[in-house]
Amino acid sequence: MRSEARIAASGRVSLVGAGPGDPELLTVKALRVLEAADVVLFDDLVSADIVDLAPPAARRIAVGKRGYRGGCSQARIHALLISHARRGRHVVRLKSGDPLIFGRAGEEIAVLRAAGIEVEVVPGITAALALGARVGCSLTHRDHAQALRLVTGRVREGGLPAGFAAAGADNETLVVYMGARQVAALAAELLQHGRLPATPALAAVALGGTREVVWCGNLANLVAGVATLDPAGPIVIGVGEVFRAARPGSVMPAPGTRAA
Amino acid sequence: MRSEARIAASGRVSLVGAGPGDPELLTVKALRVLEAADVVLFDDLVSADIVDLAPPAARRIAVGKRGYRGGCSQARIHALLISHARRGRHVVRLKSGDPLIFGRAGEEIAVLRAAGIEVEVVPGITAALALGARVGCSLTHRDHAQALRLVTGRVREGGLPAGFAAAGADNETLVVYMGARQVAALAAELLQHGRLPATPALAAVALGGTREVVWCGNLANLVAGVATLDPAGPIVIGVGEVFRAARPGSVMPAPGTRAA
Repeated sequence: MRSEARIAASGRVSLVGAGPGDPELLTVKALRVLEAADVVLFDDLVSADIVDLAPPAARRIAVGKRGYRGGCSQARIHALLISHARRGRHVVRLKSGDPLIFGRAGEEIAVLRAAGIEVEVVPGITAALALGARVGCSLTHRDHAQALRLVTGRVREGGLPAGFAAAGADNETLVVYMGARQVAALAAELLQHGRLPATPALAAVALGGTREVVWCGNLANLVAGVATLDPAGPIVIGVGEVFRAARPGSVMPAPGTRAA
Repeated sequence: MRSEARIAASGRVSLVGAGPGDPELLTVKALRVLEAADVVLFDDLVSADIVDLAPPAARRIAVGKRGYRGGCSQARIHALLISHARRGRHVVRLKSGDPLIFGRAGEEIAVLRAAGIEVEVVPGITAALALGARVGCSLTHRDHAQALRLVTGRVREGGLPAGFAAAGADNETLVVYMGARQVAALAAELLQHGRLPATPALAAVALGGTREVVWCGNLANLVAGVATLDPAGPIVIGVGEVFRAARPGSVMPAPGTRAA
């Protein structure tokens, strides 16, 4: 519920994690904050169902920048955040997943702090957790994994992130964000560093959404598996022994349905 | 709201992430599932505020096993889950943080599947995300980190987890769960693998709870910092350049308060 008292003299910004897509995977706090927003800035990947939870009167601004259009539009996001907050509004910056994982929240926080604007972070369910829940696998089953590593397939300079090369430990679960374009290099590096071709691997597109597809295979056929998925959707890739127990479709409710 | 229709002929188990402690950091789905529970099995680290969200008539069973009391009590958890589900009840297994990160959800899922009992996983906010939100730092600021690694200080065989040794990449953010007892070895390994003593480090106890304390320092004084924290509380440790921007106390609402 929106309250007029929220439009205070000094505005503020909440960086809010929208989770993987299902509105039920918002936190209670994220929902409360969103329902009290005056302005919502949201990325491409945030589902319409979630943006719709803002009050009807709230201003909605799509600030997506798919691909590498770069610094200019990030600068525009900064300018929008600051100008709306300075007009005394409560600005909600909605990011898919968790705002602190492979978003550009760090830059937004720094800019807002420098401008003297109050900023809070409301965490969200990041894709790795949603992937594990979807297939019913512990990400750190103690028989198989003592670590979970989240890496991104995108780096500022292009090419492969440095973390890829070191990601070959057998006792580690690896989850790759935005890695579809780099999947051949990823698989090759992991094999070269000693991971077996039979190591279980998963790839999921549009987790929790109506277009969700979860592919299950192994390192040897991961590249072919990813090629079957819609390249336009956000794709998350998981590699590790823990995924041997994956049960797509049988454990979790099918996409679009809800548990009783 | 609890509905009588939920007490179906065949029971089921929901593994639910309770998040870091603040009931507002439950997901909307976790709250709905908890409010419909017939039986709640909860760990030591799950706050009473959260257990209280179950219906008054729900049976509450504390199944905490702090330290290493081991397999026997895990076996008892399995037996309780199965027996209550077989009596047609909706059993909620509440775990702090996310159920799939350093819990023993993998074992519980396997046992339930083997018993033919329906199981679903409802993700939660894991401590790494709560730590980042608390101090207002991106965990993967693209200037400083291309990867986030979550490791545990506890392994089945005792001693240091294998993941520790490889965790020295400068471009990686490291978050250690249950690592307080191993902090000296952790810091020594990181320094030995080339991380600078001035690398920012944080340690937090009871994140989001009334006894919350966040310590900020660096690798050189991390051991001393952790020693100032209550060893009984769950301690999470973060290491990496991203934490240079940490602002404990100034960014997020103080513990126990809520944002407007």
